[in-house]
Amino acid sequence: MAKSWVNSAERDGADLHLELSGTGGRRAALIAALREAVRDGRLAPGTRLPPYRSLAADLGVARNTVADAYAELVAEGWLTARQGSGTRVADRTAPLPRTRRGSAKAPPRARASTPTASPSRPALSPPTHDLRQGTPDASAFPRAAWLTSYRRALQQAPNEVFGPGDPAGRIELREALAEYLARARGVRTDADRIVVCSGFAHALRLLFGGGVLRGPLAVEAYGLPFHRDLIAAAGVRTVPLPLDEHGARVDRLGPERAVLLTPAHQFPTGGPLHAERRSAVIDWAWARGGVVLEDDYDGEFRYDRKPVGAVQGLDPERVILLGSVSKSLSPAVRLGWMVLPERYVEGVLAAKGEREAWASVLDQLSLADFLASGSYDRHVRRMRQRYRSRRDRLVAALAAQAPHVEVTGVAAGLHAVLRLPPGTERSAVKAAAWQGVALDGLAGFRHPETDMEAADGLVVGYATPPEHAYEAALEALCRGLPGAI
Amino acid sequence: MAKSWVNSAERDGADLHLELSGTGGRRAALIAALREAVRDGRLAPGTRLPPYRSLAADLGVARNTVADAYAELVAEGWLTARQGSGTRVADRTAPLPRTRRGSAKAPPRARASTPTASPSRPALSPPTHDLRQGTPDASAFPRAAWLTSYRRALQQAPNEVFGPGDPAGRIELREALAEYLARARGVRTDADRIVVCSGFAHALRLLFGGGVLRGPLAVEAYGLPFHRDLIAAAGVRTVPLPLDEHGARVDRLGPERAVLLTPAHQFPTGGPLHAERRSAVIDWAWARGGVVLEDDYDGEFRYDRKPVGAVQGLDPERVILLGSVSKSLSPAVRLGWMVLPERYVEGVLAAKGEREAWASVLDQLSLADFLASGSYDRHVRRMRQRYRSRRDRLVAALAAQAPHVEVTGVAAGLHAVLRLPPGTERSAVKAAAWQGVALDGLAGFRHPETDMEAADGLVVGYATPPEHAYEAALEALCRGLPGAI
Repeated sequence: MAKSWVNSAERDGADLHLELSGTGGRRAALIAALREAVRDGRLAPGTRLPPYRSLAADLGVARNTVADAYAELVAEGWLTARQGSGTRVADRTAPLPRTRRGSAKAPPRARASTPTASPSRPALSPPTHDLRQGTPDASAFPRAAWLTSYRRALQQAPNEVFGPGDPAGRIELREALAEYLARARGVRTDADRIVVCSGFAHALRLLFGGGVLRGPLAVEAYGLPFHRDLIAAAGVRTVPLPLDEHGARVDRLGPERAVLLTPAHQFPTGGPLHAERRSAVIDWAWARGGVVLEDDYDGEFRYDRKPVGAVQGLDPERVILLGSVSKSLSPAVRLGWMVLPERYVEGVLAAKGEREAWASVLDQLSLADFLASGSYDRHVRRMRQRYRSRRDRLVAALAAQAPHVEVTGVAAGLHAVLRLPPGTERSAVKAAAWQGVALDGLAGFRHPETDMEAADGLVVGYATPPEHAYEAALEALCRGLPGAI
Repeated sequence: MAKSWVNSAERDGADLHLELSGTGGRRAALIAALREAVRDGRLAPGTRLPPYRSLAADLGVARNTVADAYAELVAEGWLTARQGSGTRVADRTAPLPRTRRGSAKAPPRARASTPTASPSRPALSPPTHDLRQGTPDASAFPRAAWLTSYRRALQQAPNEVFGPGDPAGRIELREALAEYLARARGVRTDADRIVVCSGFAHALRLLFGGGVLRGPLAVEAYGLPFHRDLIAAAGVRTVPLPLDEHGARVDRLGPERAVLLTPAHQFPTGGPLHAERRSAVIDWAWARGGVVLEDDYDGEFRYDRKPVGAVQGLDPERVILLGSVSKSLSPAVRLGWMVLPERYVEGVLAAKGEREAWASVLDQLSLADFLASGSYDRHVRRMRQRYRSRRDRLVAALAAQAPHVEVTGVAAGLHAVLRLPPGTERSAVKAAAWQGVALDGLAGFRHPETDMEAADGLVVGYATPPEHAYEAALEALCRGLPGAI
């Protein structure tokens, strides 16, 4: 009897690909086979296993091999061995249930042979034309230049790089960022005020989850719901600031001590913060002991003029600048930074932890090299040209085919807003969907508590499609617009 | 008068390295010079600037260049332009104060030329002999093999890799992990139950900060204070479980619904969890509807026998396995994973966010290749030999030079515990420090609320020093031990 089940277990076990050491092949195979037999129920809980000697004879292995295998499975808790009762299958060996997302019965190895897609979890199937905001052109990632930087960084790194990391981030990256941000964004900082993080979400969590800042937080009446959710998850209430043609109405700031703004290019409505408002919000911060969080998410991309410098440059003690490579390079490189007033540095570092527990140190070194070698500038220049051309083509297509639709906001960034007649936004989003175009209406970005008058519009992310697909996306977009010719 | 300050500003501005476009050289240089003059106080708040024409003549530039520069600085908020009052320096232009960590007066560029060390922030100066636990040998990072995987991953990646990421982690990595963990650690899972994260700290935060699990959490009476702090920061109370020679006293579990264990190799005391305790804790989890968090931090490193499989293999629905590459590869690669019971998958993904906002996607792909190509196995084998040899040398050195000092725990992992006579730990840590040896006593790992009898001992991390420095570290360690010969 023992023979029959063991042999069948043995055969199944051959598929398990256990790590077989040079001398331990039979022992390991036996362990695997036994484990599998317990798992799939052929060996039921409480079953007494055959004595070493008989199983060894059945299988043609040494007695020690069987004894070893039993001991192993006792150690793992599959089997129990009690004086006088022999070796039995333990009671607690629940089978692996099926997940909602797929069957767990197939051995993992069988899956591993098709590594590019999960057979069970539905892939995020992209729409025919993806004009949702938020993502740069994924086909334009500078693979060769990035690899050059990564290789150089990895080869030149001192050994200590591979030990525990400084929670502030690698000094090489902070120095490179200080230099770059001063030059490209008018930021005033040194490396000691920069803390590297995984991106914007991480920065918000460090500030609000770590107790560095407290709510409520004033935010623009239109903004990313994802950011509002993050802030809410940290237990912080957001208070909407209305927007007008000069940007956020900072004169309407209430008792809040912190405000989150997108001064270079209001997200999503697209205007810059007026110069007087920039000064005014700094004055407010001084007067109230408050702080401005400057979300500089696409500050490098301005097409009609040089980018306006960051508000942070006006007063580094009243502004926290938040940036990342998610728009300029790729969200796959999970790196962002915070440029902090001095009084927040220690608190943010404490919130981050004793050692770097978040941002890939190798990516940090690679980005430092990418910045210092000029590759970042070259890439941003290239993408600026590309996105500028896309925006121009969008404007031209609209002028020709849907002349009643106005593009609002400055020529900047990776998205534009098409203003629509009141009450038509929903149907326009649906009409776009009919044409295979995915995009968002303005309504989804509106703060639920704002008293500001709602505006109808479409947020068109023109950066997302690969270059070859952009023309078709524009055509489909125009076909779906109200009043299209 | 205008000429004198502008010219001096102009000279200073030459060091600023603004991004000069082909045609915008003079304009940009002028903007920089003006900004700098405002910053350093040469242009005081309220000062009226010279008319376009006179400044243009002074500098030999076109009037439009000056008008453009003024407009730019008005837009940035440095200057104000009011009807009838001309262009003036704005009121709010606070200088960048010095940080505690260093002077901010030097322009960032000057710092960037010495990128390897922060001149102001004290580097973590390593002790002569670093025998603190927790870090693998940083000199052994497999740079060439990792770069090979990274290059291959980057070159073969489909474009969508550079777009928004799946918060579960890349499917390639989850498939590779499922296969590897089954083979090497007896884990039962498929890719759909794995969620990739930045490491152990991130995993704990997702579980407790995200509301997936609630406190209190039972923990081993000896453990990493850093983990206890993380849990406390999420508002969760930890309750200590005493340890005995069979590991954690899971029979002492109280009303808690979750317990964090290090079954393969109790951290730091070094014993494995006894087979009966392994079964018992699963029974407890079933009976109470609870869950076991299995911290499999060094499960691959066992020297006296094959590693005991993970408790997770006993019952995937009652155990969350937490792992990372921090010990096996390097903490610089910020990647970890959670193998989850089905019922927690959605909650953890929700806590992680809509898109991957944490773990580097490029590192994920690289690790997937590193695992699938066998490089990970080769590296672990190599490190297993190295650490085993180090442990053997430690035991031999102690036997020869400090025979009264006992090494406790199984032959495994990256650290050992040296038991000391009661009341001698503090002085032993100090004596070690006198010999230039940094290490920790057991006391620092003890849960402050445990009623378990305190043990005196030294936790020796034998993995940290580079190979060439290990012998000297051992000698220094032995010299400092009580009763050393």
